[in-house]
Amino acid sequence: MIILGLDPSLTCTGWGVIRSEGSRLTHIANGQIKTDAKAPMVERLAALHSGIAAVITAHSPERAACEEIFANENPKSTLKLAQARGAVLTACGRASLGVHEHAARLVKKAVVGTGGADKSQVQAMIKVLLPGAEVAGADAADALAVAIADAHLGGR
Amino acid sequence: MIILGLDPSLTCTGWGVIRSEGSRLTHIANGQIKTDAKAPMVERLAALHSGIAAVITAHSPERAACEEIFANENPKSTLKLAQARGAVLTACGRASLGVHEHAARLVKKAVVGTGGADKSQVQAMIKVLLPGAEVAGADAADALAVAIADAHLGGR
Repeated sequence: MIILGLDPSLTCTGWGVIRSEGSRLTHIANGQIKTDAKAPMVERLAALHSGIAAVITAHSPERAACEEIFANENPKSTLKLAQARGAVLTACGRASLGVHEHAARLVKKAVVGTGGADKSQVQAMIKVLLPGAEVAGADAADALAVAIADAHLGGR
Repeated sequence: MIILGLDPSLTCTGWGVIRSEGSRLTHIANGQIKTDAKAPMVERLAALHSGIAAVITAHSPERAACEEIFANENPKSTLKLAQARGAVLTACGRASLGVHEHAARLVKKAVVGTGGADKSQVQAMIKVLLPGAEVAGADAADALAVAIADAHLGGR
C-alpha cells in the first residue's frame, strides 16, 4: 500500500510518500511545494495543484491522508489555508484518490505515542520510523507524519 | 471582452458569462454546478473544478471575477466555502485566467446603484441589464451580478 501524506498551506505545501507492508514502513519520497507570495492567488493555487498532481502521477499512491482542518484564531490565515487545501484536495479528487482526514492529536499519538508531542519529537520519530529518509523541511516532515499515522490507523 | 463571473460554494457554484463592449453588455451563458452532499469532499471539489474548467473551455473568457471572501460567523461553513473556492480558482489559474475580487457591496452598487440592495433587486436588475437571459438559479444570478460589476468596474 503506497500512502501519500499531505500538509497543505498556501506558502508551502508538504508531501510525503511511504510504502506500508504489514507493520513495515518504507520511505519513498518527500518534498515541499513553495509558492511565490507576490504572485496572484489563482497562480499560487494552480501551482500547488499541479505540484501535487505531479507527485500523484510519479508515485501512484493508493490512498492519501491529511490532518483535519480547523478554523484558527486568525480568519484571514484560515481562509488562505482552506483555499490552498481546496487546490490540493482537488488534485487528489481528479486522480480518484481518496483522502482520509486525521485529527492532529491522533497523528502525533500514532507517530510518537502521545497526542501532546511537539514538532521536534515528531521529526525525531520520523527518522526512527523511516531510516535514511532525507526530509525536505518541516512541512514535508508533517506530511510524512500524517502518512505514517494513516498507515498505523489503517485508513480509518 | 468576455467576462466569467463566479459564485463558488461547495453545494452549488454559480457561474455566468457575459460580453462587455463599451457600455453594452450581452448575456452569453450561465449555470450552476451542484455537488452530491453525500459524496466525499475530494470528489465534490473535483466536480466543481472540472465543471468550471469546462465552462472556461467552452466560452474562453478573457477575465474572471468573484466576490471577496470573508470569514462568516460559522467557522465550519467558512472552511467548506473556502475549500470550494480553492477548487474553482484553481480551474482559473490552470487556464491562466486572472480573477478579480470585488467586495459584495461594490457588486450590488455596480448592478443596482446601492450597496445595500437585496437579492431580489439584484435579480431584477439582471433581467434589465441582460434582457432575454434565462437564469439557472440564485447562485447563477449572483455570478452574473459579479460579471456585470466587473464589466462596470473595468476589472479594477
